[in-house]
Amino acid sequence: MKTQKKILIIGAGLCGSLLALRLGQLGYNVKVMEKRPDLRESELKAGRSINLALSNRGLKALKLVGLENKVKSICIPMNGRMLHDKKGITKMSKYSGRNKEYINSVSRELLTSLLITEAESIENVSFEFDKNCNEIDFEKNIAYFIDNNTNKESKYTTDLIFGTDGAGSTLRKNYFSKNKFLFNFSRNFLSHGYKELTIPPTDKGKHKIEKNALHIWPRGDYMIIALPNMDGSFTVTLFLSYNEGKHNFSNLSTAESVNDFFSSEFPDAIKLMPNLIDEFFKNPTGPLGTIKCFPWQYKGKNMILGDAAHAIVPFYGQGMNASFEDIFELDKTLNENNGNWAKTIKTFEKQRKLNTDAIADLAIDNFHEMKNHVANHIFQEKRSLEMKLETKLPGEYFSKYSLVTFREDIGYFEAMNRGRAQDKYILKMIRSKSPKLKLSEKDLNEIIKKECNLILKEQNYDSIQNY
Amino acid sequence: MKTQKKILIIGAGLCGSLLALRLGQLGYNVKVMEKRPDLRESELKAGRSINLALSNRGLKALKLVGLENKVKSICIPMNGRMLHDKKGITKMSKYSGRNKEYINSVSRELLTSLLITEAESIENVSFEFDKNCNEIDFEKNIAYFIDNNTNKESKYTTDLIFGTDGAGSTLRKNYFSKNKFLFNFSRNFLSHGYKELTIPPTDKGKHKIEKNALHIWPRGDYMIIALPNMDGSFTVTLFLSYNEGKHNFSNLSTAESVNDFFSSEFPDAIKLMPNLIDEFFKNPTGPLGTIKCFPWQYKGKNMILGDAAHAIVPFYGQGMNASFEDIFELDKTLNENNGNWAKTIKTFEKQRKLNTDAIADLAIDNFHEMKNHVANHIFQEKRSLEMKLETKLPGEYFSKYSLVTFREDIGYFEAMNRGRAQDKYILKMIRSKSPKLKLSEKDLNEIIKKECNLILKEQNYDSIQNY
Repeated sequence: MKTQKKILIIGAGLCGSLLALRLGQLGYNVKVMEKRPDLRESELKAGRSINLALSNRGLKALKLVGLENKVKSICIPMNGRMLHDKKGITKMSKYSGRNKEYINSVSRELLTSLLITEAESIENVSFEFDKNCNEIDFEKNIAYFIDNNTNKESKYTTDLIFGTDGAGSTLRKNYFSKNKFLFNFSRNFLSHGYKELTIPPTDKGKHKIEKNALHIWPRGDYMIIALPNMDGSFTVTLFLSYNEGKHNFSNLSTAESVNDFFSSEFPDAIKLMPNLIDEFFKNPTGPLGTIKCFPWQYKGKNMILGDAAHAIVPFYGQGMNASFEDIFELDKTLNENNGNWAKTIKTFEKQRKLNTDAIADLAIDNFHEMKNHVANHIFQEKRSLEMKLETKLPGEYFSKYSLVTFREDIGYFEAMNRGRAQDKYILKMIRSKSPKLKLSEKDLNEIIKKECNLILKEQNYDSIQNY
Repeated sequence: MKTQKKILIIGAGLCGSLLALRLGQLGYNVKVMEKRPDLRESELKAGRSINLALSNRGLKALKLVGLENKVKSICIPMNGRMLHDKKGITKMSKYSGRNKEYINSVSRELLTSLLITEAESIENVSFEFDKNCNEIDFEKNIAYFIDNNTNKESKYTTDLIFGTDGAGSTLRKNYFSKNKFLFNFSRNFLSHGYKELTIPPTDKGKHKIEKNALHIWPRGDYMIIALPNMDGSFTVTLFLSYNEGKHNFSNLSTAESVNDFFSSEFPDAIKLMPNLIDEFFKNPTGPLGTIKCFPWQYKGKNMILGDAAHAIVPFYGQGMNASFEDIFELDKTLNENNGNWAKTIKTFEKQRKLNTDAIADLAIDNFHEMKNHVANHIFQEKRSLEMKLETKLPGEYFSKYSLVTFREDIGYFEAMNRGRAQDKYILKMIRSKSPKLKLSEKDLNEIIKKECNLILKEQNYDSIQNY
């Protein structure tokens, strides 16, 4: 299946590297240009998100390229959310009633490095680093670069261009600004920003708190979370409003105020963070944005993928998984279209957009759920009911979280609709203390299924009404 | 109440001119810069939307500046939608069951000219035309201009800047591109574009079809509409997909195809349009976009208003009304804040955003309603039921259309929520052939009120669930 088709990929992050690997495996002539230095030769950067949640959708794509097991060896399984209350009392809330279902903490740098190395080992794939793309003629498929070290300009003409250059994508900016077609675009920020901190390992290099969990300190208006790293440390992230509420990034301006805030809100966590004050003032505060746009391509000859097309907030742990699933779906569509790229690209964007819009919205829902509802009585009742249903009916009941995270066989859009309908009906039962809650799991599941179908049918009417 | 405060308004369209007039009346020192020539001295431009629907919210603002009656003298009342079917059979569908409720067709040029002349008659207000603003330092409140005739650059430093420069606003573009704060932004286009055409007057200068109506030829995938002008003509607008469906702007590329399309789809209209082919190929095809963004202001010292902040599609006839209501609300907020502009600007944007988002969404709903549902059986049944309710209970029942258009005392957001809940419940009754439909208007209205409250309460739960 060797082909002379030249493909340029702009951006060697997780999405671009996996794409390069897959296209290389398919025999294409692939060049990847990355604006940053080769991270395999650089120091880890402080203040960047250094671990991520990898789950079924991402693993599906890694399996496609034959890397599932290699990647699993650098993963730490997280079986559920470990909730920390203000007194430091913890409670484990599992992600699923099925034992085999968990998510994985993985280092962004390790995983990206692995993908680059695998892709580079294919002779028809090559990478260049420190090449900053500043302009793309997407009519003629010419990309212009500046070398960060030499300031030398270069241009590259190619058959196909993929922009996998993240939320600040140059290809997307060119689509936006050149007005060659009607380009729908939105970027929306949460009122909250984030800052990364660390819980270092014990002297013996062990994890100071439960290793196999995603830790959450939910406090309503803000929260911290912690994900385990292979070296025994945890990456901690504080999510906090920029300007609103009693505590916010604007008014946490002194060591004393930061210390007071953490001591009163996260007393068990602050004890584990000896470098808190240093890190708080050294590490940047990042925004939390959602980007949606359409179309993703121009005349079937260039296309944005991953965060460049659909950047989302991190609260469902699906950013990387959605990008990896892009590659899986693109590969499938290419196969279905017998290698016709123009057809593939146009078909792919139409089928995929609905699903990436859905995960963007779900991720925002989960922001509110994580900082707030996980500590809420009704929400906890719902979770324990769903856990029972999943345990007793493992092949039949799937919570919204399970549909999104563990059902890689269905799209995000369907997962969102089914999951939201279930939540709506279950919360209604709990609020009204419905006697149905006392039914057997089997009978209860039948009722939930029936009621969800009614809810979905009614929503369908509404959408017809409004359209 | 004279003040030395210098205010710069960029854009002398409908919104900017009304703002200049109001601020002039309040004694501010107002300079208005407009990139186009003075339209009072220019020929009418072909292909621009030359008439608009003016209704209660716009009239409320015109009353504030004392121009309600002057403007009404250049308006043509439209009492309802005159529907034209494919055989040319017409049917009047009134906008309201209350006789005093109608909307008005008014010329954009006449109304803008009137506002400019009124504003200019105030000694502390002045206008400059042909001044194109290409850059704004919104930190220092300096705006840079190029004179279209002389190419001379100039700059203007001021205390306050208002960007009323429409959907392509320079101030908004500066907010977007300079990354001084987190600026949420979206622009979304319909798949349809629009093209303006004309039904000329009779030889005696009379209207060829019913004067006091907004004419619609709804055809599902596309439509034409016609609004009356004072000179006996109608401005006709074709709304049609750019690329999709059997007929679209891309494939209507020959005189023959245009002629065939109009002959088969709009047989009664084509007879009234002797210049159809000429106009079709001479007039531009325009996009239909919605722009939402936030914040609208920077540090309380400059702000975007009207289309610059919230451009909407034209299908509710509310674009100009929403912009005029901006001025009404801004004036009210300034009054409540005793002339403190920084407070006024920050308070205004928070209160107003919810309402302009609502009218943006309603306008898109109405696109689908106008081209499609108005000709649909269930929709017509709903309209006739609502007409009966409004006629019999004029002080109590208000359809969604009436809430949006004739209830200038409530905001768009409330109008949308109440109106959508009513539509949802009434359509459900009609679909299920509910026996309740046979109740007296009084009893039926009570039931609708009760059910709508339940729907709104449930929606409230849903939004809590999802947030």
